Amino acid sequence: MGLIVQKFGGTSVGTPERIRAVARRIVETRRRGNGVVVVVSAMGKTTDQLIALSREVTDSPPEREYDMLLATGEQVSSALTAMAVHALGEPVVSLTGAQVGILTDGVHTKAKIMNVNRERMDKELEDGNILIVCGFQGINDTGDITTLGRGGSDTTAVALAAALQADVCEIYTDVDGVYTTDPRIVPEARKLPLISYDEMLELAQLGAKVLQPRSVEYGKLHDVVIHVRSSFNDEPGTIVKEVSDMERDFVVTGVASDKKVSKLAILDVPDRPGIAHRLFSALAEAHVGLDMIVQSVPAEERNHVMFTVAEDEVGKAITVLERVKKELGAGGITCEAKVAKVSIVGAGIAHNASIAARMFGALAEKGINIKIISTSEIKISCLIDRDQADQAIKAIHDAFELGGGNS
Amino acid sequence: MGLIVQKFGGTSVGTPERIRAVARRIVETRRRGNGVVVVVSAMGKTTDQLIALSREVTDSPPEREYDMLLATGEQVSSALTAMAVHALGEPVVSLTGAQVGILTDGVHTKAKIMNVNRERMDKELEDGNILIVCGFQGINDTGDITTLGRGGSDTTAVALAAALQADVCEIYTDVDGVYTTDPRIVPEARKLPLISYDEMLELAQLGAKVLQPRSVEYGKLHDVVIHVRSSFNDEPGTIVKEVSDMERDFVVTGVASDKKVSKLAILDVPDRPGIAHRLFSALAEAHVGLDMIVQSVPAEERNHVMFTVAEDEVGKAITVLERVKKELGAGGITCEAKVAKVSIVGAGIAHNASIAARMFGALAEKGINIKIISTSEIKISCLIDRDQADQAIKAIHDAFELGGGNS
Repeated sequence: MGLIVQKFGGTSVGTPERIRAVARRIVETRRRGNGVVVVVSAMGKTTDQLIALSREVTDSPPEREYDMLLATGEQVSSALTAMAVHALGEPVVSLTGAQVGILTDGVHTKAKIMNVNRERMDKELEDGNILIVCGFQGINDTGDITTLGRGGSDTTAVALAAALQADVCEIYTDVDGVYTTDPRIVPEARKLPLISYDEMLELAQLGAKVLQPRSVEYGKLHDVVIHVRSSFNDEPGTIVKEVSDMERDFVVTGVASDKKVSKLAILDVPDRPGIAHRLFSALAEAHVGLDMIVQSVPAEERNHVMFTVAEDEVGKAITVLERVKKELGAGGITCEAKVAKVSIVGAGIAHNASIAARMFGALAEKGINIKIISTSEIKISCLIDRDQADQAIKAIHDAFELGGGNS
Repeated sequence: MGLIVQKFGGTSVGTPERIRAVARRIVETRRRGNGVVVVVSAMGKTTDQLIALSREVTDSPPEREYDMLLATGEQVSSALTAMAVHALGEPVVSLTGAQVGILTDGVHTKAKIMNVNRERMDKELEDGNILIVCGFQGINDTGDITTLGRGGSDTTAVALAAALQADVCEIYTDVDGVYTTDPRIVPEARKLPLISYDEMLELAQLGAKVLQPRSVEYGKLHDVVIHVRSSFNDEPGTIVKEVSDMERDFVVTGVASDKKVSKLAILDVPDRPGIAHRLFSALAEAHVGLDMIVQSVPAEERNHVMFTVAEDEVGKAITVLERVKKELGAGGITCEAKVAKVSIVGAGIAHNASIAARMFGALAEKGINIKIISTSEIKISCLIDRDQADQAIKAIHDAFELGGGNS
């Protein structure tokens, strides 16, 4: 008998009717002879509604109480899902994060899972029960409720799969897998049957919002096979696991874009040690998240330093730059608010110069100017004008012949 | 420094605005130098909404999951109340029934509190925190969530007051105390400054829905002084405690009515041993709750047996009677669906024949016929036509001169 962890997101359990559909899928999995542990998110917009309610009480709720409040969303959906499974005649119990023994660190609203206690789960599985576990939540070492941050139910599911050494962790979502690129932009995009943790991680962080990045890291660390699939049909989706080169069809796995990026530059700073440290320390203190960073070749002992930030942090970043400009002896500040980052992801990209050449060539052919390039072991990213982003993605997707029927 | 337990019902915490008002009252109590432990019910109609949601999933939810679902209502209101107290600058933590250590028996949906663990509460109070505790809920010995039944938050409050040996348990509600009778029926009804547990218990069970009866029993058992008062003003309400005769103004404390009563009779049953046992066993097996029971004087070795049931159980009761009629050799069944029970409550009533005489006289004077009489140590109840109930209450209230200004 296998053991399968299934996670259903807020859309999948958004109404009583959908909860009954989810229950049918759970019961089918069980009747195929598997042990089943299910993780559910809060129903639909519940979390947003609870946040709105708290705002009516106070503008600055303590984070401990915020977690206490938000955790009720998953408790409601897990109880209702258990009721629906029970109505189909299978033995079932719902369990909160506390009851299941999900121990986190003490950081409220974005806690990290430290340990999962198997004891209660093992007992319930031995008793023949299906388990419906509240996603997104755990307890810290004083017994207070903590939450794992947006999308945290993915991490709950992967953590339970790791603790129970489940055969697979199925993530049911409203898309039917991971695609070579966004199918809304490139209709020829192909569903990937297989992707490695590292590639998934790059794609997740580059804007493919299928899995919470931390859940992928957790899966990689504990070798959990993750199956991303649709809650609306029975088609196989995308398997995320450690992939050997022999299993690969393509060097380039996917093309991703992030359109909510802005480019900032501080101009004519003196070319001497400590300047970059001072600049980026000041930005870090203001909690500005940085992405691509480029320092131009010095001319006359002066540099330009460019970097990208999330679009909604531009204001904060400019405030910092204005403050340190004088101290650094810089010549000026420039901002291009509306740029986009397009990236290709794939194992071995860094070792294959022809890949980069082909990407740049595809962009050049369409007359798209590259503002910044940044690379990692498995990724090449280019910063371009935002209104050329979709055109760029199409051109790159074509250049690597990623299209085709879903396999 | 005193220690005060305060309980706020669903109406008192029904909106974010009211929650802020409740927080101001909590903070005032604190700033007068008291330790404060607060118990809250679910906001307004939350519990009903959760029940409706479960009905959309299944007609027969398992009671364990029902409790898991309903317990979220108090978790939401306790977190929001803690946020509101925090916003006023006082240190505060919300706690679930599990966190506070309220151990119950294993009976889901109507659990009884077995024990309250002081450890976490003592620690939080020592740290200077105000405690906002979820009413209505506890955990059983396997760590599953249990609920205490409708009105269970009153019992939570009294149980915490008992465990902490609090100076007083204040129950804030939408009425400002316990009255000699329902002021909507008798405008001259007087607020009682003081009432004994036993009297309160009789009044509570007779339809004065101010306190859950079990909370009064718990209070009596552990000698908890309960103060029933309004959440909308600062007037003193009614103190419920052990009352010595010296403290009493009146023999008759109050007049109560229950209009949702029906009278059933099974006629001409043989006058031999075992008949009543068979009849009432059959009703008990069908979970029909009985109240007044009268067996008429036998004539020609045959009896009439009359009893009252809650109006909404009449159908169930008649089904049982039809079934056992033949077996018992009874002559027939009669039902008066629309009757009412009016009662006077007061210590020492049973020892004072003039009290009963005065009550019956007041009814006779208005031409009200008495169908059944039943008495206890501190209560006399009469069953009458329902459409004469209000008139009867006024007449009895006048006869015992219970009216007067609120004291």
